[in-house]
Amino acid sequence: MDTNALARTPHPAAAELSRELYALVEELYPICRSITGDGVRQTLAILSRHLPIQVREVPSGTAVLDWTVPNEWNIRDAYIKDASGKRVVDFRAHNLHVVNYSTPVHTKLSLAALRPHLHTLPKQPDLIPYRTSYYQETWGFCLSQHQLDALPEGDYEVHIDATLAPGSLTYGEFVLPGQSDEEILISTHLCHPSLCDDNLSGLSVSVQLARALAALPSRRHTVRFLYAPGTIGAITWLARNRESAARIRHGLTLTCLGDQHPFTYKKTVFGNALVDRAAAWVLGRAAAETGTAHQVIDFFPYGYDERQYNSPGFRIPVGSLMRGRHGQFPEYHTSADNLTFVSPERLAESLDVLRRIVEVVDGNVAYRNLSPWGEPQLGKRGLYKAMGGTDIPDLSMALLWVLNLSDGRHTLLDIAERAKMDFKTVRIAADMLLAHDLLGELRQGD
Amino acid sequence: MDTNALARTPHPAAAELSRELYALVEELYPICRSITGDGVRQTLAILSRHLPIQVREVPSGTAVLDWTVPNEWNIRDAYIKDASGKRVVDFRAHNLHVVNYSTPVHTKLSLAALRPHLHTLPKQPDLIPYRTSYYQETWGFCLSQHQLDALPEGDYEVHIDATLAPGSLTYGEFVLPGQSDEEILISTHLCHPSLCDDNLSGLSVSVQLARALAALPSRRHTVRFLYAPGTIGAITWLARNRESAARIRHGLTLTCLGDQHPFTYKKTVFGNALVDRAAAWVLGRAAAETGTAHQVIDFFPYGYDERQYNSPGFRIPVGSLMRGRHGQFPEYHTSADNLTFVSPERLAESLDVLRRIVEVVDGNVAYRNLSPWGEPQLGKRGLYKAMGGTDIPDLSMALLWVLNLSDGRHTLLDIAERAKMDFKTVRIAADMLLAHDLLGELRQGD
Amino acid sequence: MDTNALARTPHPAAAELSRELYALVEELYPICRSITGDGVRQTLAILSRHLPIQVREVPSGTAVLDWTVPNEWNIRDAYIKDASGKRVVDFRAHNLHVVNYSTPVHTKLSLAALRPHLHTLPKQPDLIPYRTSYYQETWGFCLSQHQLDALPEGDYEVHIDATLAPGSLTYGEFVLPGQSDEEILISTHLCHPSLCDDNLSGLSVSVQLARALAALPSRRHTVRFLYAPGTIGAITWLARNRESAARIRHGLTLTCLGDQHPFTYKKTVFGNALVDRAAAWVLGRAAAETGTAHQVIDFFPYGYDERQYNSPGFRIPVGSLMRGRHGQFPEYHTSADNLTFVSPERLAESLDVLRRIVEVVDGNVAYRNLSPWGEPQLGKRGLYKAMGGTDIPDLSMALLWVLNLSDGRHTLLDIAERAKMDFKTVRIAADMLLAHDLLGELRQGD
Repeated sequence: MDTNALARTPHPAAAELSRELYALVEELYPICRSITGDGVRQTLAILSRHLPIQVREVPSGTAVLDWTVPNEWNIRDAYIKDASGKRVVDFRAHNLHVVNYSTPVHTKLSLAALRPHLHTLPKQPDLIPYRTSYYQETWGFCLSQHQLDALPEGDYEVHIDATLAPGSLTYGEFVLPGQSDEEILISTHLCHPSLCDDNLSGLSVSVQLARALAALPSRRHTVRFLYAPGTIGAITWLARNRESAARIRHGLTLTCLGDQHPFTYKKTVFGNALVDRAAAWVLGRAAAETGTAHQVIDFFPYGYDERQYNSPGFRIPVGSLMRGRHGQFPEYHTSADNLTFVSPERLAESLDVLRRIVEVVDGNVAYRNLSPWGEPQLGKRGLYKAMGGTDIPDLSMALLWVLNLSDGRHTLLDIAERAKMDFKTVRIAADMLLAHDLLGELRQGD
Repeated sequence: MDTNALARTPHPAAAELSRELYALVEELYPICRSITGDGVRQTLAILSRHLPIQVREVPSGTAVLDWTVPNEWNIRDAYIKDASGKRVVDFRAHNLHVVNYSTPVHTKLSLAALRPHLHTLPKQPDLIPYRTSYYQETWGFCLSQHQLDALPEGDYEVHIDATLAPGSLTYGEFVLPGQSDEEILISTHLCHPSLCDDNLSGLSVSVQLARALAALPSRRHTVRFLYAPGTIGAITWLARNRESAARIRHGLTLTCLGDQHPFTYKKTVFGNALVDRAAAWVLGRAAAETGTAHQVIDFFPYGYDERQYNSPGFRIPVGSLMRGRHGQFPEYHTSADNLTFVSPERLAESLDVLRRIVEVVDGNVAYRNLSPWGEPQLGKRGLYKAMGGTDIPDLSMALLWVLNLSDGRHTLLDIAERAKMDFKTVRIAADMLLAHDLLGELRQGD
Repeated sequence: MDTNALARTPHPAAAELSRELYALVEELYPICRSITGDGVRQTLAILSRHLPIQVREVPSGTAVLDWTVPNEWNIRDAYIKDASGKRVVDFRAHNLHVVNYSTPVHTKLSLAALRPHLHTLPKQPDLIPYRTSYYQETWGFCLSQHQLDALPEGDYEVHIDATLAPGSLTYGEFVLPGQSDEEILISTHLCHPSLCDDNLSGLSVSVQLARALAALPSRRHTVRFLYAPGTIGAITWLARNRESAARIRHGLTLTCLGDQHPFTYKKTVFGNALVDRAAAWVLGRAAAETGTAHQVIDFFPYGYDERQYNSPGFRIPVGSLMRGRHGQFPEYHTSADNLTFVSPERLAESLDVLRRIVEVVDGNVAYRNLSPWGEPQLGKRGLYKAMGGTDIPDLSMALLWVLNLSDGRHTLLDIAERAKMDFKTVRIAADMLLAHDLLGELRQGD
């Protein structure tokens, strides 16, 4: 894509953009999502107000790779009532109170018989944990340790008003065409119930990235945005889109982008794919600008849907961008991952970094110096300040770097890395040289 | 080899094994060995009580590579007597007192005339040095500086009752067949006289390794144990076994394995051979377990018989496992390398580390994931705990790592290194996946 | 070249050599050089008293690569006179006072009108800056800030008695034939006026290197010494010598070799060319010997004529040897770069290091071990001390290293790097092995 165009794209003022990012998280927060069901459909309907997302339904029982699309789960209400009929655990208070994908149940049990179905976090006694049981039929409730400790012995009425029955799995996608049919994939999971950072933050940032890229006059790559339940959603998409999958050159999963932690980028299984280098470069430059830390970590076959994309059959280079790391902050997968845990400013920062990474991935071209014998005389073209003998600024150095390394074997990111410059500076220098016919596209055989 | 089988191999309890390792060193200590002669034969006879070693004799004068098998040396007695007839230096007290391979002599000399034949360690005045003169015919005595200082002027009777005459060079080998005729070589020099760490420790550990491996139901590689005099022994073996040499894929020389020093592994000339990576990995894991240090050093063309195996004609990747480093501890090649310098516990530790290295070298296979499109559903196969949302333990991660990297280009050691796991954990995960038909052997062309 | 011969070359005693190096700088210092003109010719005439340099003249207007040889500039006098007729800025006092390549001017101006033509260094108020305007026709004066501050308002007579007219560009070269027509290039710019370190130091060291190499019986490479104006001189030479340029295998630009700074080596664009490795090795060894620091920095497309040689059309691996770094010491391009800024001792050190780098580049051969099966018996050839059991010195280790790594894939520098030895020690060991027929030249196919 034309990065200058991107920089010029009219978009809401920074503060307004921050507010929009946060507002979408707020709107999505109350919905009880799962890997199937109406919560997913509601979520996609809200996202579709911002983007023309195509919603897909895949029937329960469909074989997808080594898996099978499960029955659809929907829940209306759930509670535990004490002997007095008072709801002591109430789904209406927080949808984390029910183990996600619980089978329906309505019975009376002693506290002792109930205990194996109750999940708490003894070390974080104020918080409700998030638990799921997608592929083993069972039911359960999650509650704070304090809640549990306060329950007297006695009988309890347990009711989960849910259905687990043939239906379908729902996901959405939005494809932004580019000059080439080679694709960049932005994949976010949308299966978590009321958890803000994981992963309403990813959904909100993804939607705003799509809007920003859609506003550009053009992009080199086609960009595909996928909104699907974790694991089974990615597997379903891969099973149904083998040809599209084969065209994906670069990808990112997005998660936990609204919290206060510095950025973490998790590499693809390749370890040195373009998206790996682009993310490391952008995060390094951004960290230097702001004086903050960041980390780049190696791939491991756990986490989010990068696991599926990077599997040996597909080997699509998909990295993962996040702030707080999966499983490594105390609010992770608890009721503390709420609206106070994420902020408009951090969401906006995440969007900015993500845009810059996509700019690099999309704009990383190798050129050919058309005047490769010695340095071309920049002065006569007005590309060099006339008075020698002093230091030259960054852009002049960028011109010299692009000329020196444009031998067909170095891309602009190679040059930025070697020159230790922002990708954008190098991109601008290349555009100036292209305009002066000092740089050209590669010819076949270069 | 089947590492679970190895782990299950009945063997003497650890304490008894330590005692056996030490007892063999004790038994071999008094013998005066050299690069030829009856000391070598006696030593091999003792080792043969534990292993069915084949003993080879190669006649003096035989051309072996660029060398010639020397005359055989045998010694019965040696002394220096003072004017009163008292033995002031006595071979019977310590066989280091005679320069190894000294020519016979019986004469009377003034102390001044004798001095050029006397070797001491002035900076370690209590210790007798170890000196040899295999290829230059001369004679000499080694004694402590204190002994030398106490000798009054006067005439001395010098007697070395030795023979240096046509005979043969003796070495032993024991070959443990495996599924393949590709070989692992374990080579130890057996030419040193009364020096415990260098290299009775190596002999003892080698014999116990052979017994442990022999007790296994099978091994992937054939394992060859060589017990030969340093330099000329390895050269003789190589000269007579070109075809066997060409089948050796991995090797180790063993030395100084009974002292208190942390482990040192000296790499092959290749620097990144499998045995190099296996040794570095095992030592690193062992060091982390015990909180001790270890070092991995680069190859250099000096030391023990790895010099010969790694020579440019053969280029057999043979590393060297040791504790104290050749020439870098004060007891090295002195009378202080005695029975108190080595201990049962350190010998047992060395055997344990050596076994683990051989396990990696023998068990390092690359497999093919038979369900490579996305992750196979482990849950339905009972390979995954049912309740999601929490951390998974090491073995579950090992399953995911083996699945993700089993694309035919990663061996189990590659996976262990990348996953930062014990090789054994990865090996067990691979065995589980093999049992569930999720993993297969490589096919031709993989 | 035969490094022993080099070491044995009779040359002036070190102190005399230091004096000669400095004396040449002294003699050249007063001349006002530029990229063309009589100052260049005078300079080449002086150098030609030491070396039979061939002087080339290239007419103004000649097209050279993307450039054109400019008009020739000569200057006779220049001044600014105050109202009383006193020269307040006087070219005769220091040739830096005139912007190099100023167009002729003779006029009267108010101080206000004059100011845009006056250049100072406000932060170094005692120093005159060095400024040039080769390709934009203008004129100017350089003076110290103190001088400028002392000028009262009023009218000034300005006179630059210069000519800028068709003529020619002048450069010199000296070619020392070798066994091969593959070349080493030593390139120094000679366009700077009265600046000692940049680059009379380079000229002086280059001339003495040429004399030392010329005194050798032979060299493997042809060595070409180029003395040319910066940028346009290198471009002109490259434009006229495409075939010679294609034969250059290794090169160095020399600059700032007389100051007190530790050495800096700037790598070629390749980053791992032989000259890069040779310079890093020699500087590392020299720094270890003297306990001083040094640095090896990455290539960047600015600095001296390495920019042209390393351009993508030519890609000749030319590094740059310097002490103080271009633009990074306060005396750089000011009147403080004078005869007190450079010293005989530092010039001599630079020559020594440069010779050692050229020795490595010229003498870096790969051999074949002619006795590659095991170690050859060095003892029977008198190459090994007879009594074993103790440490062996550096040369014996060098023999073993050369034997082990001479498999046709390792050059002597590879061996020196791996053995952590002086290149000369390894070179001597190789010569000993060659003399004993244990080493041979590579055959075709090796």
